[in-house]
Amino acid sequence: MSDRNRLIYLPLGGAGEIGMNAYVYGVGEQGAERLILVDCGVSFPDMDGQPGVDLILPDIAWLEERADRLEGIFITHAHEDHVGALGHLWGRLRAPVYARNFTAIHARRKLEEAGHEPDQVRVVRAYPEVVEAGPFKVQFAPVSHSIPESSGLVIDTEHGRVVHSGDFKIDTNPMVGEPFDEAMWGEIAGKGVLAYICDSTNVFSRHEGRSESQLPEPITALIGRARGMMVATTFASNVARVKTLADAAVANGRSVCLLGRAMQRMIRASVEAGVLTDFPSTVSVEEARDIPRENLMLIVTGSQGERRAASAALSRGSYLGMELKEGDMFLFSSKTIPGNEVSVGRIQNALAEIGVEIVDEQSGFFHVSGHANRPDLEKMHDILRPRILVPNHGEFRHLREHARLATEKGMLGLVAPNGTMLELSGNAPAAVEYVEVARDYLDGSTRVGAYDGVIRDRMKLALNGLVIAALIVDEDDSLIEDAWVELRGLPDHLRNGHGSLTEMLEDELADLLPRLDRKITRDDDKIEEAVRRAIRQSVQAEIGKKPEVSVIISRLVAE
Amino acid sequence: MSDRNRLIYLPLGGAGEIGMNAYVYGVGEQGAERLILVDCGVSFPDMDGQPGVDLILPDIAWLEERADRLEGIFITHAHEDHVGALGHLWGRLRAPVYARNFTAIHARRKLEEAGHEPDQVRVVRAYPEVVEAGPFKVQFAPVSHSIPESSGLVIDTEHGRVVHSGDFKIDTNPMVGEPFDEAMWGEIAGKGVLAYICDSTNVFSRHEGRSESQLPEPITALIGRARGMMVATTFASNVARVKTLADAAVANGRSVCLLGRAMQRMIRASVEAGVLTDFPSTVSVEEARDIPRENLMLIVTGSQGERRAASAALSRGSYLGMELKEGDMFLFSSKTIPGNEVSVGRIQNALAEIGVEIVDEQSGFFHVSGHANRPDLEKMHDILRPRILVPNHGEFRHLREHARLATEKGMLGLVAPNGTMLELSGNAPAAVEYVEVARDYLDGSTRVGAYDGVIRDRMKLALNGLVIAALIVDEDDSLIEDAWVELRGLPDHLRNGHGSLTEMLEDELADLLPRLDRKITRDDDKIEEAVRRAIRQSVQAEIGKKPEVSVIISRLVAE
Repeated sequence: MSDRNRLIYLPLGGAGEIGMNAYVYGVGEQGAERLILVDCGVSFPDMDGQPGVDLILPDIAWLEERADRLEGIFITHAHEDHVGALGHLWGRLRAPVYARNFTAIHARRKLEEAGHEPDQVRVVRAYPEVVEAGPFKVQFAPVSHSIPESSGLVIDTEHGRVVHSGDFKIDTNPMVGEPFDEAMWGEIAGKGVLAYICDSTNVFSRHEGRSESQLPEPITALIGRARGMMVATTFASNVARVKTLADAAVANGRSVCLLGRAMQRMIRASVEAGVLTDFPSTVSVEEARDIPRENLMLIVTGSQGERRAASAALSRGSYLGMELKEGDMFLFSSKTIPGNEVSVGRIQNALAEIGVEIVDEQSGFFHVSGHANRPDLEKMHDILRPRILVPNHGEFRHLREHARLATEKGMLGLVAPNGTMLELSGNAPAAVEYVEVARDYLDGSTRVGAYDGVIRDRMKLALNGLVIAALIVDEDDSLIEDAWVELRGLPDHLRNGHGSLTEMLEDELADLLPRLDRKITRDDDKIEEAVRRAIRQSVQAEIGKKPEVSVIISRLVAE
Repeated sequence: MSDRNRLIYLPLGGAGEIGMNAYVYGVGEQGAERLILVDCGVSFPDMDGQPGVDLILPDIAWLEERADRLEGIFITHAHEDHVGALGHLWGRLRAPVYARNFTAIHARRKLEEAGHEPDQVRVVRAYPEVVEAGPFKVQFAPVSHSIPESSGLVIDTEHGRVVHSGDFKIDTNPMVGEPFDEAMWGEIAGKGVLAYICDSTNVFSRHEGRSESQLPEPITALIGRARGMMVATTFASNVARVKTLADAAVANGRSVCLLGRAMQRMIRASVEAGVLTDFPSTVSVEEARDIPRENLMLIVTGSQGERRAASAALSRGSYLGMELKEGDMFLFSSKTIPGNEVSVGRIQNALAEIGVEIVDEQSGFFHVSGHANRPDLEKMHDILRPRILVPNHGEFRHLREHARLATEKGMLGLVAPNGTMLELSGNAPAAVEYVEVARDYLDGSTRVGAYDGVIRDRMKLALNGLVIAALIVDEDDSLIEDAWVELRGLPDHLRNGHGSLTEMLEDELADLLPRLDRKITRDDDKIEEAVRRAIRQSVQAEIGKKPEVSVIISRLVAE
């Protein structure tokens, strides 16, 4: 082993934010490390920051430049923030993808949808099966989370063992999937753990985590007191929860109907992959329409208030002919993700208008988190006893708090937000390099950089409105005086509420343009500048806003 | 009293939403009722729904048409969602404004800023002083809330007594202002209450409300363990809280510095109005810079993550020369209002990056709500024993739940969202009319209706981007073939990442335009239609988005 051979860790996404997970590990001589990528997820845009954008993708420019050294891509589980970018980015990386069976189904679909060969995805069995990828030996160690077959990764290198937690909680009875296996983790810890890269989502939740198995009783009781139709929503991928909900319906003599494509697809995939057994038989929506509402339970998509999902459609009136009525009950068996409060509130208000009884987290005990709370994080620290703890899967405040906790407990807590390369090997593990890491936007079918100015321009249009002025300049650099003005996103009235702002601006330009000096009219940039300034001043004076201005100059050329 | 003489209630804002309070009461013959308006508040826009808008105002068209019958405007307290629209709307109503002293200071400033005479605001003393306004006799009954001199209104009419709760909580020791006065409310109930129009904000909070007086001890202890600079933020108008924070600082030997204009103005107004006494002396920011950080406490604006407030500036680096450092502590003595989670999170993450310890509601007991929880609502129901309960100050789900609760307890609970006119008099109080009520936007200095399409257009620009195409048509209806194209909010590259979308579109139009039939080129609408369709198709094919398109046609006229 050369002096300069090292083990590095570089988050490209997911550290300093919740979402868009993408972590690079490298082993080898400095600048020639062989690399693996753990997870390849997306983040979701909002009107506030990324209007019109479809998805937020990690900026993998650094990794793309080194794609020849990439030995493999490992996917811990099938949530979008871990696998959602695979189809969009695989073509720039072109390395084999490793995942367990259920995750692989989703990873393959992502590749297929993007026009790549799905057989790039290789199925790996759970620990202790080993994948060799260059200098890395990787095992998928089952953990409990809110989707089947979630795994942490045990990554062995010549510098020691790294454990990458993946998203996890400690649940000894998760209803679907593998329970927490303390013996396995003890065995993994046995040889000594150099570094634990660990989920930080719930580091501020101080109470002990709760088990999925605590839910069937209260949910069954709740459905027992419903008089009309029962509807419940949760994340489709939370297969254990969907099963809990369905079982509780059946226990109350209700038929189960799954609504929303994601819900149906996920349950089908889970049954096919063998991770879900004993799921009660369901009825189609056509059959459901013939079942008395007090004998029916819908399990639907849209727990986060998504406008096009089944929950939103039901709250607005009907979905595939199903309609809610006064006396029905609607259960949100889910947490509202920060940022989605307003959309979820919109649905709850619409349901309240219909007269539907709404039950959510605040009303009782109908949801448990998929992430480890602080006591469970500490339990894992104590089992693994790593030398280094690197918090990931968290906003900056989560990373910092988790590192503080680790340091207090005698580990070396290292905060490494996106772009911070840590050397984990050697005597003094620390940050060794900062890589410029932005984020990319998938906008329609094309990629736009977060700092390209395109989305910023859209936000300016939304905030300020736009005045378009079209001018014609003839062969002699004379402005033909009739300028055309069009407003977008601005009211076409004057201060007093009467008259047209468009006409006022056209009149003003008709007045201004003939008076412009030849020094200006010879130069498109100068014309534009003069027209923009005049328009901004007039609009500001008239309606109190400084709009965006686009000046289009058409030059007539002598034929 | 004529058969058709009646008492009506009509919310124009605040019922079906939290914010923008504006409630009309009327007494008289149907269609000739004499009217009063209770509160005249604003709501705050967001990028998601009202990009670029400055304020949301209630739609008072109904009341404006009947302004000659308006006897007075009564303001319950000085929060923006109760008084913020007064300056903007008073010119259309022109009725005397009644408020208690502290509220009147704010109401006068609103009128002054809008160019109206501030002496339209008349100061009323607390219950039992009576204002006579046409057929109404109105008293201001003190309640506890999160701003000084909050009041409920006792409104006597020939049909009976109505109590309008205003925003309130039950606090027997609110630290600043009048404690809950059960004897007074008993007296008010004595003659019988026809209807109670009641705050519903916290109807889903089932635990008993907590008193402001429970905060000094934990806050003083918290500051006691701070090692560096201490910073706390809360709503500036929560004068009691600001005093609690300042007292706790002094108890720990720290000098207090107020940062942010709203904070300074509100404390000054409170001292001047006599509602705040014994406020500790403060230091200016220039003095603060010379005080060792462990002897200093800043009380700052921006508890909701407002980008331009002191909290945000401090989190980004510095504010007026004050800088935060590792080891400082930052207390959010406030609730994050739904919708503001992301902006507050942004500040907390920036503080965490600096190394500042963040303490908020979740970390302990450093905030109490200003609204009555369910047990306190029930206590007021039981004291007043109204025949009718009309929930207000709530989203639809709150109104509905509050009405359900009232009905359960034997009152007549009536849900009346904005625009629902209730007749409260007579044998069968119920909704009698639905008034078309929208909302108005203050956009710059002008008013835009929510349904005018202007803001919708802005959102479309933000979501889809814009292609502008400028064409010239000559005297013979021939298109001069060089069309100019400009993109706004769209990436100027092609699918493969190379080449220019602008140039591609210009080439396509150069190809398309000469081929257009005379039947089309004679008609601007038809040209526009053809060009728009071509551009949308090409852009969709190239980058997967259907953009907005503005086609500007300049017609050359024979001279």
